Amino acid sequence: MTTTTGPIPVEPTAPEGGMRIVIVGGVAGGMSAAARARRLDEHAEIIVLEQGAYVSFANCGLPYHLSGEIAQRDALLLHTPESLAASLNLDVRTGHRVTGIDRHGQKVTIAAGEDSYALPYDALVLSPGAVGVRPPIEGLDHPAVHTLRTIPDVDALRERVDELLDMRVETGQAPRAVVIGAGFIGLEAVEALTSRGLQVHLVELADHVLPPMDAELAPLLAAELAAHGVDLRLGVSAQAVTPLDESVESSTTGAVTVTLSDGATLAADLVIVNVGVRPASALALDAELDLGPTGAIRVDADQHTSDPHIWAVGDAVEVTQAITGSRMPVPLAGPANRQGRRAADSICGHHTTPQAAVLGTAIVRVFGLTAATTGANQATLRRSGIEHEVMHIHPGDHAGYYPGSEDVHLVASFAPNGTLLGAQGVGRAGVDKRIDILATAIRAGMTADDLAELELAYAPPYGSAKDPVNMLGFVAQNVLDGTMPQWQADDLDEAMATTLVLDVRSRTEFAEGHLDDALNIPHLEIRQRLDEVRAAAKGRKVSVLCARGVRAYLATRVLLGEGFDARNLSGGWLTLQAVHPNL
Amino acid sequence: MTTTTGPIPVEPTAPEGGMRIVIVGGVAGGMSAAARARRLDEHAEIIVLEQGAYVSFANCGLPYHLSGEIAQRDALLLHTPESLAASLNLDVRTGHRVTGIDRHGQKVTIAAGEDSYALPYDALVLSPGAVGVRPPIEGLDHPAVHTLRTIPDVDALRERVDELLDMRVETGQAPRAVVIGAGFIGLEAVEALTSRGLQVHLVELADHVLPPMDAELAPLLAAELAAHGVDLRLGVSAQAVTPLDESVESSTTGAVTVTLSDGATLAADLVIVNVGVRPASALALDAELDLGPTGAIRVDADQHTSDPHIWAVGDAVEVTQAITGSRMPVPLAGPANRQGRRAADSICGHHTTPQAAVLGTAIVRVFGLTAATTGANQATLRRSGIEHEVMHIHPGDHAGYYPGSEDVHLVASFAPNGTLLGAQGVGRAGVDKRIDILATAIRAGMTADDLAELELAYAPPYGSAKDPVNMLGFVAQNVLDGTMPQWQADDLDEAMATTLVLDVRSRTEFAEGHLDDALNIPHLEIRQRLDEVRAAAKGRKVSVLCARGVRAYLATRVLLGEGFDARNLSGGWLTLQAVHPNL
Repeated sequence: MTTTTGPIPVEPTAPEGGMRIVIVGGVAGGMSAAARARRLDEHAEIIVLEQGAYVSFANCGLPYHLSGEIAQRDALLLHTPESLAASLNLDVRTGHRVTGIDRHGQKVTIAAGEDSYALPYDALVLSPGAVGVRPPIEGLDHPAVHTLRTIPDVDALRERVDELLDMRVETGQAPRAVVIGAGFIGLEAVEALTSRGLQVHLVELADHVLPPMDAELAPLLAAELAAHGVDLRLGVSAQAVTPLDESVESSTTGAVTVTLSDGATLAADLVIVNVGVRPASALALDAELDLGPTGAIRVDADQHTSDPHIWAVGDAVEVTQAITGSRMPVPLAGPANRQGRRAADSICGHHTTPQAAVLGTAIVRVFGLTAATTGANQATLRRSGIEHEVMHIHPGDHAGYYPGSEDVHLVASFAPNGTLLGAQGVGRAGVDKRIDILATAIRAGMTADDLAELELAYAPPYGSAKDPVNMLGFVAQNVLDGTMPQWQADDLDEAMATTLVLDVRSRTEFAEGHLDDALNIPHLEIRQRLDEVRAAAKGRKVSVLCARGVRAYLATRVLLGEGFDARNLSGGWLTLQAVHPNL
Repeated sequence: MTTTTGPIPVEPTAPEGGMRIVIVGGVAGGMSAAARARRLDEHAEIIVLEQGAYVSFANCGLPYHLSGEIAQRDALLLHTPESLAASLNLDVRTGHRVTGIDRHGQKVTIAAGEDSYALPYDALVLSPGAVGVRPPIEGLDHPAVHTLRTIPDVDALRERVDELLDMRVETGQAPRAVVIGAGFIGLEAVEALTSRGLQVHLVELADHVLPPMDAELAPLLAAELAAHGVDLRLGVSAQAVTPLDESVESSTTGAVTVTLSDGATLAADLVIVNVGVRPASALALDAELDLGPTGAIRVDADQHTSDPHIWAVGDAVEVTQAITGSRMPVPLAGPANRQGRRAADSICGHHTTPQAAVLGTAIVRVFGLTAATTGANQATLRRSGIEHEVMHIHPGDHAGYYPGSEDVHLVASFAPNGTLLGAQGVGRAGVDKRIDILATAIRAGMTADDLAELELAYAPPYGSAKDPVNMLGFVAQNVLDGTMPQWQADDLDEAMATTLVLDVRSRTEFAEGHLDDALNIPHLEIRQRLDEVRAAAKGRKVSVLCARGVRAYLATRVLLGEGFDARNLSGGWLTLQAVHPNL
């Protein structure tokens, strides 16, 4: 590692003669591979090359350091090169960037500051991660524009926020931020900046926040954002970032104007861009390793690339998506960690557990709400041509008779044979638990019948004798076996044009908002007023609805028992309003 | 229903000519059957006979009404005969006790106050529930002695507690309660009474609280009870309840002395007995329906009894225990509800989902702690001769770098082929979630490999990239494939007598308490001090331990890599102390 002008020096192989394992990338997958390799092989030489200044840091914690909840920056640094040397005898080299792979010669070339050198390997693990997508926005190089993916990113953001808050003391005006992209990290950034006292504008190109989830639950998140003062701009993109004319709108040094595709302009002291990531596979491409069509590194079930001496893990590799079977990168910490472990098993000759197809289970806190998803969403199922039936339910997170029960809004898709394909949830309590149970159920190939029979822990503070997951199973059983035909919020036009809409909510609920031409018969009166239904239906189908789908289910069963062609609105008025916000 | 002296009157069959379904017992299973039957058959006549004054009440909520958390008694009454008539057209008759079943004539005889009558049925559902076991304690009829199974029970208890608290104003002395039986409901009763301000003594015959769970986690519950001032008496039984000599010890009217098997006496103003239940199968026995050896009603997968016109559900019926396959009653609300639903499906000719084997998933809150269990415990596995390996882990409920992470203490048993057999957890957060995931995993027949690969929702407030459930999978994989040989707290004598005990905790931790003759080498020094280990081991096995099992795992791997015969203590010092409280 001396400065050279001629051929670069080559580091000799390990004096002890053990295997040398070289790992490119010292976060999540790479560090999991290194640690597992050491535990399996005390005598291997294990070298971790990290181009950044930090290894093994908690990426997922960055927004919470920005918010201040994780007060100490050191808490994010789970390990240091020193601690890893001491506990696992790893040779961790930060600031060392791999510039090339000589597959034939089994060595990598490395730039470290002014120096460069070559490092032979017996086994090479690539864990390069992902890079943030740079959207086509003019002026993105302005210093006010930030990302939130690394320790230096969060350092810069905290410094800027502190500076802005200091200025507020003078100006008396809340600093303004624009967050571009309402995905998981974007929402965490919004929460963090808002909690610090900034006025936040959130710009999202899709028609709803959290585009990885379907649209029905998004209005709950939008309402929560609004309740915390966030200004949400949906269906628009940011087009330009330009220096703000300070004399006109603001006295803050370094402020900008963000111009949106609808012509609106937002003044901002700070911009965070989070519009997704793409695999950092340039090194693999240069080395002519096989990549998939998404640009991710292709690996087999043991994390082997197309080169028998090179493994790859983490955000840069292709995984098989559960349900659809398609191959794509899924940038999540859990799978990355397990891939690293698997690569080490493979390298060290330990038996490996083949990688399971990835469900894409993910979760985010948005102020008081939790939103989570697992398996395939409806958009993916439609795109993949996979037949499915969607259920919407809104049960309480625990027994309603025990104080503090909160709605768990669940949407789930089932195959016609009852197999659970995907589920999403939003609520103030118990959402993480239900999505984790459902993720386990999808992995096991469970059906509606299986969910109905799941035996979950019940005491009043924790759940119900019929847990939300059981309820999902019951509803899906009823829909799939024809006991409860249902209609969807998307069928609204058809329902209003060709069927009798029967609203079985109370008169008070009905008066607060209802569909035009709907007949209102509270569900407890339905048996006594069948003649009215018959007269209004005139032989047409009856599209029943209530607030959440429960009373309308009872009414639908009465009507079916009396010979009507009846069906229940999935998720009731609550879901209908979410899908049709202008009702 | 008139008073008769001659033959009792027979209620005519339903005028409409539909099927008549008679259901005996109007709580949980019975009411689920009635409601489902109505939803499936609008024209059936459905009669529910309940001997008590209330139907469809929230048994599981009773302790929380006693505590006052559920302030309104009405909240416990989920439905009334009137509301059930209005919503489901059910004929609910409270205070009607079924006195006999004429199977040949397909009718039941009923006593209602002074009256009696006979009621023909097309289908009969028995949901008689369970009765509290009456332990052999002298003086159990004293009015100070209560149970906590019904609405009148909780009414009487609340009245007594209120009265005692009023007296306290005069005496200045906390009222005293003795709770006999530290099972789920016993613990809830203790919590409730303590929160009302009573001084509570808890008497349990077993050597640890919550006998349905294994012993390792019980000390955590015992410590929590002690921290809230509960006086715990383990390994003793109550033998007599005698009126207290009021002149000597107390001015409270109606106080008693509870004499224990160890000779101790406890003064009490109130006694609650909760030592388990047995099936209320007397009616079924009289009718010569098949019962199992436990006295529970035998049913098939569709809840049919041995009579083709009689179904049975709930606490009085036998279920198949998962893992062991043995048949016994399991008094839990969730299975009871699903059994009721299944019986109705069967009666109404709807396809049924055969009952899954029962896991016995259960949960209880004990002040700030949650304790939960699913599947077979170790005692059951031993009794059934099922080979298993036990893992103990203590991970955080969410990422350690995010504030507020709490230990999730997990114990799980795996078959040698990796199949999960049972799991238990105790902790302040996230226990219910992990036990529900594990219950789902057991139902699916998942193995250690499957748990390792589960993809659960991770963001810092909710979990970790390697969730506690994943960690359980990793540890079990390592133990079962020989990567991490382990020893158990139960092996302590053998370990001390025949192996080198190597304690790899820090010097400070070691100084605070350690095993005699243990060698202390902090884990980070192990590679440099192998000679010391070699000298001390003298060719013997090395039994490694640390606080929780993580550092000792790393040290064990180093030692195995260096040729030692090493093994790691499952669960570490934390579990060792729990099993050997006098260390």
